[in-house]
Amino acid sequence: MGRVRVVAPATSANLGAGFDVFGLALDRPADVLVVEEIEAGVEMVVEGFPVPETPEANVAGYVAKRLAENAGAGVRLELRKGVPPGSGLGSSAASAVASAAGVAVLLGLEVGMRELLGVCAEAEGVASGAPHADNAAACLYGGFVCVGEGMRVLRVEPPEWLEWGVVLPEVRVETREARRALPERVPLDVHVHSLGSVVMMVAGMMRGDRELVRLGMRDRFATPVRSRWIPRFEEVVRAVVEAGALGVTVSGSGPACIALCSGDVCSGEEVAEAMGEVYSEAGVECRCFWGKPGGGVEVEGRRLSNILKG
Amino acid sequence: MGRVRVVAPATSANLGAGFDVFGLALDRPADVLVVEEIEAGVEMVVEGFPVPETPEANVAGYVAKRLAENAGAGVRLELRKGVPPGSGLGSSAASAVASAAGVAVLLGLEVGMRELLGVCAEAEGVASGAPHADNAAACLYGGFVCVGEGMRVLRVEPPEWLEWGVVLPEVRVETREARRALPERVPLDVHVHSLGSVVMMVAGMMRGDRELVRLGMRDRFATPVRSRWIPRFEEVVRAVVEAGALGVTVSGSGPACIALCSGDVCSGEEVAEAMGEVYSEAGVECRCFWGKPGGGVEVEGRRLSNILKG
Repeated sequence: MGRVRVVAPATSANLGAGFDVFGLALDRPADVLVVEEIEAGVEMVVEGFPVPETPEANVAGYVAKRLAENAGAGVRLELRKGVPPGSGLGSSAASAVASAAGVAVLLGLEVGMRELLGVCAEAEGVASGAPHADNAAACLYGGFVCVGEGMRVLRVEPPEWLEWGVVLPEVRVETREARRALPERVPLDVHVHSLGSVVMMVAGMMRGDRELVRLGMRDRFATPVRSRWIPRFEEVVRAVVEAGALGVTVSGSGPACIALCSGDVCSGEEVAEAMGEVYSEAGVECRCFWGKPGGGVEVEGRRLSNILKG
Repeated sequence: MGRVRVVAPATSANLGAGFDVFGLALDRPADVLVVEEIEAGVEMVVEGFPVPETPEANVAGYVAKRLAENAGAGVRLELRKGVPPGSGLGSSAASAVASAAGVAVLLGLEVGMRELLGVCAEAEGVASGAPHADNAAACLYGGFVCVGEGMRVLRVEPPEWLEWGVVLPEVRVETREARRALPERVPLDVHVHSLGSVVMMVAGMMRGDRELVRLGMRDRFATPVRSRWIPRFEEVVRAVVEAGALGVTVSGSGPACIALCSGDVCSGEEVAEAMGEVYSEAGVECRCFWGKPGGGVEVEGRRLSNILKG
């Protein structure tokens, strides 16, 4: 009866106009999960950020139950939550993916990446009210991903120069609530604008073209709505532009804001600090993160995409 | 007082979900325009397909007036319409671009590609009721293009293997009418589906990945609406799938249908003939075209993109 240690990083979904399709794997913060085989059932303990601890109410537990019961096995999960829940940084996806990856590798399940993505997206649905796969895909595959019809994942290796900065102000945004605030129908001009933006973004990532990534971050659909929940968002935008980053947008459904930058004009750390100062000056508590794109979930130090097939 | 001969090819806009953003330059059919310098004013004659012949009512005349009057010069246009008007194959864009390219080169105007695109898009607006730049951009730049915010053009060199087949059934679709038939608001699930499709398409074009291009042709927005004007569209789709092509969609606002294929399983000619047979069997007149992606407008045998800058 073995055990494995899994590290599943934060992710940023949407990246502007790529609503429900784009995801970027970050290299930090991360959930750390130790999965241990036991006789039967699913047991779990959680430390770090508070999340539900019963296997039924926790995405990691939900995924473990699905996979382990199917295999007639039992597992014990020791989850150390490093990705803040309710932040827009893919907290539930990190836990779901950590569990899926750990259980699959520990039990030697004959599953591919796409099946694990399906289970994780389903678990995300339990957590947020609507199944979506953008964060989970980024966490599973690493790098920059686009999730299309039928959960097909296009993975793109981000440019070498890409850095990111995140500011997470102390304000609670419920994913369900933020999702409900979006209109059920998209005005045609906003639709066309979004099509152009996502094409520029993916082409920019593929070509390593800074100007295309800058254009790709423009969004007239979700960002204007979701940024209403984020204090001083306009000042954050101004700070990012002044710092020389490529752009800033709401990460997932927020309240984290993610700025991308190219490392030459300004670093991820610099843009994160510039955003953090907006909140310090306003007396709003916040946390800052920065780094490079990440390679996705790792089991015992190896990328899952190098362990499993397709 | 010199003269230049310009060849401006047909183009196919949208290519599935890329509504108002994607354009593909074809290598045929084409408008041929001879532009000659005269003392003053704009004169024109048209042969081939019937279109308005007064400079005020013709897109080529409109563009020539804008550019030549600005330069204090006069031009005479001899337009041979080879792109059928009202077909969905970028007929007005071909004429507008031919005129813009010819007048700019003949008069040695200090203009770039983007300025010419702006004038052509404006002329398209006069012709169709709404300025749009997708066909004109494909015709000007050649290859596969995406037009984003502020008419930024992303040009992608299509894969070597890409071939196309077109069937043009004898049924008149007015661009204005087809445009009005589209809903003013896009359901959120259709919006997200379109985002995924356009990303797959541009990535497929950039990587030369057949499977991504196949996914990229799927569209739930404009195609279902516009195909209502096209007789036996479902049979056309079936014929294309049976022929082994990557997919088929309405070209622009139709009624031409364009299928893309990879040349290995079936050629552009084969898929065009398969679509043509659907109409022959049904007793509907149609024309078929096939070929490869084209390099865009040529002035005196040279690609405009090699003559002008940016």
